[in-house]
This record gives sequence, structure tokens and C-alpha cells, in this order.
Amino acid sequence: MIPLVSTLTEAEQKAWLASLSKHMPELSFGLFSELSQAQKSACEFAIVANPDPNELADLPNLKWVQSLWAGVERMVAAFPEAGFKIVRLVDPHLAETMSEAVLAWTLFLHRDMPYYARQQAQATWQPRSMVRAVERRVGILGLGELGKVSALRLVENGFNVSGWSRQAKQISGVTCLHGEQGMQQLLESSDILICLLPLTAATQSLLNEQTLSLLPAGACLINFARGAIIDDSALKLKLDQGHLAHAVLDVFQQEPLASDNDYWGRHNVTVLPHISAPTHMTSACQVVAKNINYYHETGQIPTAVDMTRGY
Amino acid sequence: MIPLVSTLTEAEQKAWLASLSKHMPELSFGLFSELSQAQKSACEFAIVANPDPNELADLPNLKWVQSLWAGVERMVAAFPEAGFKIVRLVDPHLAETMSEAVLAWTLFLHRDMPYYARQQAQATWQPRSMVRAVERRVGILGLGELGKVSALRLVENGFNVSGWSRQAKQISGVTCLHGEQGMQQLLESSDILICLLPLTAATQSLLNEQTLSLLPAGACLINFARGAIIDDSALKLKLDQGHLAHAVLDVFQQEPLASDNDYWGRHNVTVLPHISAPTHMTSACQVVAKNINYYHETGQIPTAVDMTRGY
Ligand SMILES: NC(=O)c1ccc[n+]([C@@H]2O[C@H](COP(=O)([O-])OP(=O)(O)OC[C@H]3O[C@@H](n4cnc5c(N)ncnc54)[C@H](OP(=O)(O)O)[C@@H]3O)[C@@H](O)[C@H]2O)c1
Ligand SMILES: NC(=O)c1ccc[n+]([C@@H]2O[C@H](COP(=O)([O-])OP(=O)(O)OC[C@H]3O[C@@H](n4cnc5c(N)ncnc54)[C@H](OP(=O)(O)O)[C@@H]3O)[C@@H](O)[C@H]2O)c1
Repeated sequence: MIPLVSTLTEAEQKAWLASLSKHMPELSFGLFSELSQAQKSACEFAIVANPDPNELADLPNLKWVQSLWAGVERMVAAFPEAGFKIVRLVDPHLAETMSEAVLAWTLFLHRDMPYYARQQAQATWQPRSMVRAVERRVGILGLGELGKVSALRLVENGFNVSGWSRQAKQISGVTCLHGEQGMQQLLESSDILICLLPLTAATQSLLNEQTLSLLPAGACLINFARGAIIDDSALKLKLDQGHLAHAVLDVFQQEPLASDNDYWGRHNVTVLPHISAPTHMTSACQVVAKNINYYHETGQIPTAVDMTRGY
Repeated sequence: MIPLVSTLTEAEQKAWLASLSKHMPELSFGLFSELSQAQKSACEFAIVANPDPNELADLPNLKWVQSLWAGVERMVAAFPEAGFKIVRLVDPHLAETMSEAVLAWTLFLHRDMPYYARQQAQATWQPRSMVRAVERRVGILGLGELGKVSALRLVENGFNVSGWSRQAKQISGVTCLHGEQGMQQLLESSDILICLLPLTAATQSLLNEQTLSLLPAGACLINFARGAIIDDSALKLKLDQGHLAHAVLDVFQQEPLASDNDYWGRHNVTVLPHISAPTHMTSACQVVAKNINYYHETGQIPTAVDMTRGY
């Protein structure tokens, strides 16, 4: 039996088990609590979603785990010296959904929706002159599974797009930058900055007072990655100073966002409840089935997280 | 001299004359008031933007006018038996801008931005389950210069798109409907309905209580065409009843929208100050230059409005 090791609700676990079984009818899936001692000893891999570390520690022969999420920073932090590999969810459907969110909220900022909402609240009819997409410089931090597809979607829709990654890259139509100097260049030329980095030791608080100051005056920020990549007090300061015009935040250091956090009440912040790219159960199960089949057929573990880089 | 006959402000007229002269340096452009009697008699065509009918009546040999706007319903109404032809602005750049607006506000509705804004106002963290673009049925009324490009842009971005026009059409990837039965079918299957029709005798109040009732419960409406195509009290009723979830309105029977109009204060209405697709002076002047050159070279008037259809 392949265990699902998670801290999801009972209903969520049930739904996942049903969907996994439907996509892999030849295999049997169950909860960690249902494993016999013999099954625990035999278990080579598990499906995980925010797992309890004690439960994983109770699987002595674990070789790899398949996460149901794309972001695995909590697992990386919890198992720095894990004897097993962590395979995160790499789902083209998820990238599609994320690129749609990136396009939607980029257009939200590009077409001045926050401004027009404020005008409406004051019953004021005041058109603003329009900027063409080709003149709107959008910078994307992170050109991985999600960042790359998002960058291409923005290019297809006419924007002037740059991106930044750790290693040098070539993506058709996108100005690709990397390294420390590349980041400075990207920030200095982004009217709209979009964060799609993983949370690692290197990206924690990467967007702080110093780096946010590099953005052009009046720039906007979208964070669809992880809350801790942003230093919240620095962001609030930059918004208060008017250096940044607007921030769209889908992720926060603490989720749900505390009801007394002043992000909620700011007219220049859009708060979203982590909805930019939810996992789609059907396509996720297809990806998981492919990974498991690959392992069964080749004996090889699918591409796993590099624990030294942290992603 | 080619006159600009308009009720624009002086600054706007100046800007247009400068841009027209820049694009057609071999021709001379001026205001109607600058024409001598001889020039008035000789005048075969004029550039117009919401012109004073008395001024046009003072040009006895006028053969055609080039409008600087795409919508010419006011001219059609003012000159039902005009001896001259009306050429409206058909500018691919305008269609591009409109298709961007259509995509932007379709994504605004598709990704539940009005709902999340209300949640934010209440400091409430409440994700809503996501609908995939392919499952979101978008219906477009009007498949002309603006409607067709908008439909294609929505298809490229994954939506399930239908469109409606007077005559039968074929557009790759778009379910094309026409005629009265086609309209009923379109309305019954549109989660998001977008109006891009011209205002004519046939389209005035086309969206009324009866037709709006055909939309599925919870549908949304976007009007980027003309205010009078919608019966406002019917729309308000349908919003009050909850039959329609949200309306995005860029155009109104009276513009600017009166400050006491209750559209302003509705949480389920987005009011925009006619900004979906502003004329872009440079590309408009390129189109006008092409039309004038065509007339000079061939002696033929460019494609003009059909006065019996009204568009
Ligand atoms: N809000 C949501 O609903 C949601 C949903 C899914 C995922 N996410 C978040 O999105 C993140 C990104 O996902 P992904 O699948 O695109 O990850 P990925 O494929 O691992 O890509 C990460 C990208 O970031 C770059 N990067 C990492 N560390 C860097 C550094 N120190 N300096 C410069 N570039 C660096 C990588 O550069 P190289 O290419 O050079 O390695 C790569 O381009 C996830 O980690 C998750 O936190 C959020
Ligand atoms: N909000 C803004 O900023 C803005 C900017 C520009 C334009 N506009 C508005 O957009 C309107 C559309 O512009 P356009 O350039 O796309 O016009 P167009 O090229 O003339 O296209 C009109 C479309 O509507 C269809 N149609 C007209 N009357 C109809 C009827 N009675 N029943 C069914 N279909 C009908 C036509 O059908 P056929 O193809 O069969 O003839 C055609 O597909 C303009 O008239 C203007 O009012 C608004």
C-alpha cells in the first residue's frame, strides 16, 4: 500500500485517495494510519502534502516522496538531512493556471483597475491616459516551471518582458538576466514586478527595503510565490512613501492572513487568499501516476529537489 | 485645405491638426472656421469628430467625411439623408486595444476579482473554487472589427468563445451564431456576455429585461459598445434579483455618468469612464492618411457606413 502522509482534512484526504486510486487502479493507496508494521518497513515511497515529520520518520526504507504541492520549502526545512528524495509537483496544468493568474493581475495593474475602483468609490469620472502593453515593462523573478510559462504568456499578449533566474537562460522574446547584477538590472527596469521564486535561504527577504528601492517610482508588485520572500515592513514603507503604487499579494508569511494585519485595509494592496494557482486534483494525479510508473519501470527516482539549493 | 469639423476642445483640435499634418505633410489641414467661401465650395471631404451639423451643411460639394471615432451612431442619426458618405475609423491598433480590454475585464470576472475585493473589505480569507478557462463560456455580441479580434484573443487565452452577428460568419475556434435564434442561443450559453455592437435602431435596448433573463443565473455582463444598447432599469433589476452577478460598464446613455446615478455605488457594478479603447492619435492618422491617399489615387470613397443598416 502506498501511504498518503499529510495534515490535510479528512475530507481532503478522502478526495485525494479516491482520485489517486482512480488514476492508478492497479495500485492501492491508504492513509499512513492504516499501514501495518510490515507495510511501514516495506514502504519505499509515499505521497505527501504537508506531512507530519514523525510519520515520515516511521518509514525506515523510504526512498522518495511525491509532494502534491509545487512549493516544498517546509519539507526542505523539516528534513535537511533526509535519507529520502523529495519530488515536488511539476504539472503543466498548474503552470497554465499560474500564467493565467499572472496575465490577469498584470492586466489588472496595466489597465489601472485599482485607480478606476477608487474613482468609482468617489463617483468620479476621470479617464487616465493609456499605456500600450509594448511600453509596459514586466519583470519576472524566477524562470522555472511557472515563471517561464508566465513570461511567454505575457509576451504573447504584447508586454515587454524580462526575467531573472540563478543560471543564464534563453527564452524567445524574453530578456533573460541572472546573478546579482542581473537582479539589479531587472528591478531598475520593471514597471510591474512579479515574484515566482521558490522560498529558500537565498530568497528569504530578497525583496527588502534596499531591493524594492531599485524599482522605478510608481512601480507595482505581484507576489504569487511565498510570503517570506518579501520583507513586509519594507513593502509597507515603500507603499506609504508612494514609491510603489500597488501590490497584489496572494501569499503571506502567515496564512490565513491575520484579520488585524493592515494589508487588508490598504487601498494600494490587493489581498488574495492563496488562489493564484490551486492544485488541480485530476491533472496532479496524472502527473503522480506518471512519476510512479517511471519509478516502477526504470527503478529511478523522478527529478528531485536539490537539497543544497533548496528547490 | 482639408477641414477638421469637430466639437473637440481647442487643445484637442490643435493636437489632431499637428498629427494629421505630420502624417500627410503634402496636404494642408485647418479648422472649419478658417475656410474661405471658395474653399468651402471646393471641399470634397472633411475630417470629423462629433461635428456640428450646421458646419457640414455649409459644405455643398462634400462627398465623404472621415470620422476619427469608430462609433458613428450620432452622425448617422444627425444626417439620415446626407448627400455624403460617412467613413468611420477602422484601425487595427484600436482593435488590439479593445481586445486587450476585453481580455482584461473577462479575466477580472473569470478570476473572481470583484468577489475577492469584497472579501478583502471584510478582512475575510475565503478561497473560491476555480473554474478553468475552457469551461468558462464567453459570448460576444458583434463580430465586427472589434468583436472578431477580441474573440480570437479570448480563444488564444483558453476561453470557450461564441459570437453573434447579423450575417453568418466563420471564425476559427469561435462558435458563430446569427439571427434572432442565434442570439437566444448565445445568451442562454454565456457565463460572461460582452457587448461590441454598434448602436443602431436594431440594437437600441437590445439588452432588456426579456433578453437579459435568457442569460444563465449568475452570469456577468461587459458593455464596451454604447450605453443605449442596454435598458438600464432592466439591468439594475437583474442585478438586484441576483440573476446577474456583475456588470462592467464603460459606456453610458449619458457621459460622464451623472454623479447621482446609482451605478456608481453598486458593489456588483464596475463603472469605467469610457476607457476600454481610446483612439490612438498616431495610428488613427496613419489610417486616415491611407484612406485619403486611396481616394486621391482611385477617386473612390473608402468603405463607408451603410445608412440603412446604420453601421
Ligand atoms: N500562489 C500559488 O498558488 C502557488 C502555486 C504554485 C507554486 N507557487 C510557488 O511558486 C514557486 C515557483 O515554482 P516553480 O515550479 O516555477 O519552481 P522552479 O521550477 O523550481 O523554478 C524556480 C525558479 O527560480 C529561480 N531561482 C531559485 N533560486 C534563485 C536565486 N537564489 N536566484 C535567482 N533565481 C533563483 C530558478 O533559477 P534556475 O532556473 O536558474 O534554477 C528557477 O528559474 C514555488 O516554489 C511555490 O512556492 C505558488
Ligand atoms: N468603449 C470604447 O472605447 C469604444 C471604442 C471603439 C468603438 N466602440 C464601439 O464598438 C462598436 C463596434 O465597433 P466595430 O468597429 O467592431 O463595428 P463593426 O465593424 O461595424 O461591427 C459591428 C458588428 O455588429 C454586428 N451587428 C450590427 N448590428 C447587428 C444586429 N442588428 N444584429 C446582429 N449583429 C449586428 C455586425 O454584424 P455583421 O458582421 O453581420 O455586419 C458586426 O459583426 C462601435 O460601433 C462603437 O460604438 C467603443
